Amino acid sequence: MGKVWTAGLVVIGDEILSGRTQDKNIAQVASWLNVQGIRLRDVRVVPDVEERIVEAVNALRTGYDYCFTTGGIGPTHDDITVDAVAKALGVEVIVHPQARAILERYYETRGGLNEGRLRMARAPQGAELIPNKMSGAPGLKIGNLFLMAGVPHITAGMLDALTGTLEGGRPLVSVTLGAFAPESEVAELLRTTEKANEGVSIGSYPFFREGRVGANFVVRSEDQGQADAVAGTLAAGLAEAGYEPVAGGI
Amino acid sequence: MGKVWTAGLVVIGDEILSGRTQDKNIAQVASWLNVQGIRLRDVRVVPDVEERIVEAVNALRTGYDYCFTTGGIGPTHDDITVDAVAKALGVEVIVHPQARAILERYYETRGGLNEGRLRMARAPQGAELIPNKMSGAPGLKIGNLFLMAGVPHITAGMLDALTGTLEGGRPLVSVTLGAFAPESEVAELLRTTEKANEGVSIGSYPFFREGRVGANFVVRSEDQGQADAVAGTLAAGLAEAGYEPVAGGI
Repeated sequence: MGKVWTAGLVVIGDEILSGRTQDKNIAQVASWLNVQGIRLRDVRVVPDVEERIVEAVNALRTGYDYCFTTGGIGPTHDDITVDAVAKALGVEVIVHPQARAILERYYETRGGLNEGRLRMARAPQGAELIPNKMSGAPGLKIGNLFLMAGVPHITAGMLDALTGTLEGGRPLVSVTLGAFAPESEVAELLRTTEKANEGVSIGSYPFFREGRVGANFVVRSEDQGQADAVAGTLAAGLAEAGYEPVAGGI
Repeated sequence: MGKVWTAGLVVIGDEILSGRTQDKNIAQVASWLNVQGIRLRDVRVVPDVEERIVEAVNALRTGYDYCFTTGGIGPTHDDITVDAVAKALGVEVIVHPQARAILERYYETRGGLNEGRLRMARAPQGAELIPNKMSGAPGLKIGNLFLMAGVPHITAGMLDALTGTLEGGRPLVSVTLGAFAPESEVAELLRTTEKANEGVSIGSYPFFREGRVGANFVVRSEDQGQADAVAGTLAAGLAEAGYEPVAGGI
């Protein structure tokens, strides 16, 4: 087995911690990372408070191969991610010339640059830009840190720009089986099947639908052949226990 | 100003970190806590790995007044929250007699207790139960720790059972104003308005809708009168800048 590449994510914003906004970036970043062959191992959600951002960024950038942040790179007073990251890295905040040029061009027909807009050209010294196809302000990349927007469709564009640029390993593949089986009836089958197959994890995700309980079972492995084989074993076990396995899940 | 009561949340589960499942508990727990007069200050998402759960639970239970967990209390092999919390607290895992009785009754007409189902009666020594109206297995409460289900509608039932039982302070109230104003045009207005009003925070949440950019501005305070007054100031400032403020947001 090769190196397993890992990442952490810091979700920045009072609006997530107040419940006002339902986070969508955790799932989005997680799915994207998996395709890059990188495993998301840690997520922290922190408020718009500099010392909390510094602490989380330092913990995750040193603990994992990559550290991503979402949120706090806009034009308003509560957008303090750039300052916090510069502090975490011990570098200055500069106005990034290329970012400034992008913003000048973007706002040329939109009222011109002002103080708030110019905030979005600020960067920790040494950062490169992550293109933003959706709106003007770019994301930032410095060392193993990637600072992205908080608005999910803008984040998506930045992830898209990063696709294929980060070194990773083999993605996890998964095979899903569903059954109208209460998971508590098949827990032992899941446990023994996972235990007998090194490198495989089996997740169990119960549901209640059309008046019946059931669960989807997700077999994960770096090896498609192994995932298929273990899913086969599990399907046989479910059938033996009297539950019809449904390939692809229910 | 009285004591500000705080909480942390540990979201447990590989399915969140793999991107398979979109978390809904952060927003749900956050909103519920606010009504109880408790501020969610920290969220960590961790995999189904004992040492990671132990570490996060210990960090948050000692760092805040309350610590909540979601996930990992079901019947399968990857449900290890009870073991991890017992380890974090340095207590034994016992079979809770009351939880066992509840499960016996619940499964009486559903095939009876088996090993997997009995797992859901396990508890850190000293825990009390949090009622579960949706399915059999209860949540657990021990010290300032609250262990809840991961399936959002079951979590909701457990939160409902806890409503009004936790000591808190004054809830934050919020007043929302919307405007078809690019936030970068009004950033300075937001900053100075917030700065001039101690105890108030103003969040800015941009959107792009019907071909126009705009933002909702959320004024938060413990004091309804103050929030209303500051929202009034902000509305006047928006109008002065040529943007029609819309009470309640857009």
